[in-house]
Amino acid sequence: MAEYPNKVWLNGEILDAESARISVFDRGFLFGDGIYEVMARIRGRFFYEEAHLKRLDECLQKIKIDFDTRMLTKEIPRLLKASDIVENDCLLYIQVSRGVAPRTHAFPHDIPPTVMMYVTPKTLPDINSINASVLTMEEFRWSRCDIKTTSLLGNVMANEIAVQRECYEMLFVRNDIVTEASHCNMFFVKDNIVYTHPANEYILDGITRQVVLGLCADLDIVVREEGVSKQRIPQMDEAFLTGTSTQIASIKQIDQHFYYKGDEIGKVTKKLQNAFLGLKKTGF
Amino acid sequence: MAEYPNKVWLNGEILDAESARISVFDRGFLFGDGIYEVMARIRGRFFYEEAHLKRLDECLQKIKIDFDTRMLTKEIPRLLKASDIVENDCLLYIQVSRGVAPRTHAFPHDIPPTVMMYVTPKTLPDINSINASVLTMEEFRWSRCDIKTTSLLGNVMANEIAVQRECYEMLFVRNDIVTEASHCNMFFVKDNIVYTHPANEYILDGITRQVVLGLCADLDIVVREEGVSKQRIPQMDEAFLTGTSTQIASIKQIDQHFYYKGDEIGKVTKKLQNAFLGLKKTGF
Repeated sequence: MAEYPNKVWLNGEILDAESARISVFDRGFLFGDGIYEVMARIRGRFFYEEAHLKRLDECLQKIKIDFDTRMLTKEIPRLLKASDIVENDCLLYIQVSRGVAPRTHAFPHDIPPTVMMYVTPKTLPDINSINASVLTMEEFRWSRCDIKTTSLLGNVMANEIAVQRECYEMLFVRNDIVTEASHCNMFFVKDNIVYTHPANEYILDGITRQVVLGLCADLDIVVREEGVSKQRIPQMDEAFLTGTSTQIASIKQIDQHFYYKGDEIGKVTKKLQNAFLGLKKTGF
Repeated sequence: MAEYPNKVWLNGEILDAESARISVFDRGFLFGDGIYEVMARIRGRFFYEEAHLKRLDECLQKIKIDFDTRMLTKEIPRLLKASDIVENDCLLYIQVSRGVAPRTHAFPHDIPPTVMMYVTPKTLPDINSINASVLTMEEFRWSRCDIKTTSLLGNVMANEIAVQRECYEMLFVRNDIVTEASHCNMFFVKDNIVYTHPANEYILDGITRQVVLGLCADLDIVVREEGVSKQRIPQMDEAFLTGTSTQIASIKQIDQHFYYKGDEIGKVTKKLQNAFLGLKKTGF
């Protein structure tokens, strides 16, 4: 998503990207007081649209922003059309902030939220062929990672360290346990059993994470929603990341530990990548 | 600061508040990727202006936003004049975000920051006469509270709980130790010794906190920069909050524990309030 879209839907109006402007008193700008979502559109349909909108709804409720997400399902087709993206695959970004008010920490309760959406053309690869190198760091973000907030400085700082070191992602280690990455969920495989951190307040419960858990059930792969400690990283057989645009990305290296030589990919990871591709091709 | 100012300084332009608008692609809006400051102007001078600008500078460096804060000292007088605030006391708000770029977590390194300032008329009371009731909650924010970021959702949520329960502030308890409040620093007094959490990554090192530590030195009051555990709250003799607009506010109640009956104020708190008033009157 590193290009500007040509159109932005802002509070019901469709504008050129350059004209899409908000007040400096928007609480999204002053306080990071907002929630966001990213959805992929694949061959004419959004991938798990309902699950994404449900999560948006739940996150808005968690921070008490009153907004009926159902109105978006009517507006998204308008935005797609105005953006000249009818057939193409794309990513949709949605952000809802609390709205515009004079600056004071406590919530104003009587203002309309600021709602912004845009789409950028993006064809996801059939299978993510990045064999990712990732780093670990001590968790330093808040303990409400289940809230998909725009107060993202912690994630941004972590991701920046990874990028500076030419790595794809940064994994967070909280109380010695690997939780998630700066914008992906984290999975390990050991003896054909899939491990991922439980969906509590220490991780964002990714839609792709949920899809992968469903695929494991379909494929009779045993899953344990348990955290893996940092010490056990070298003892794992496979590791992979999931996310809306990452899909399923094999991890070849965590810190100094290599899982594979060259372009090898673990067999459970590959099985899940293929099943994920099948899901995208045959309908979801 | 719960009113709109009449003017906003935005990237060198002085605008009416309604016209001060930024791109929806500002990283301050998309990621809470920014730093802010609030300064009080008292009888024609900013209170510890240099210390505030130094902290702004340091916080910008911590998150690698490249901006020369020295240019603000020339621009602030222009803003004051345009805002018709030359004589009046006021609060100045400054926010620097990383700037405008297509959305991607890692930092863009070649964009100019978005800089925004405004002043609102505000005469601080000689002595803060609020005898605050405050609550405690388990810390859930990140562990870089030393960075005065606009990614403030955690502070906002905590403050909202306090306000809903008709309290002035929410104190955070991290690993059993009281650290700070949602927008104030926290002090205790026991046997004439002043206790406050050390200025590490768990608190924002408030300018008023620093001033109070200086006043303690002047007044030969012993200070220990040590955290106080939640269990010891009832054993303390006095408790107070400090902050730019809070100044020094006596705490009469923390959760179920009352320090005072009626409008009583502890003697060390009162001594510091008087010394603080002296500082404001006789120059700083």
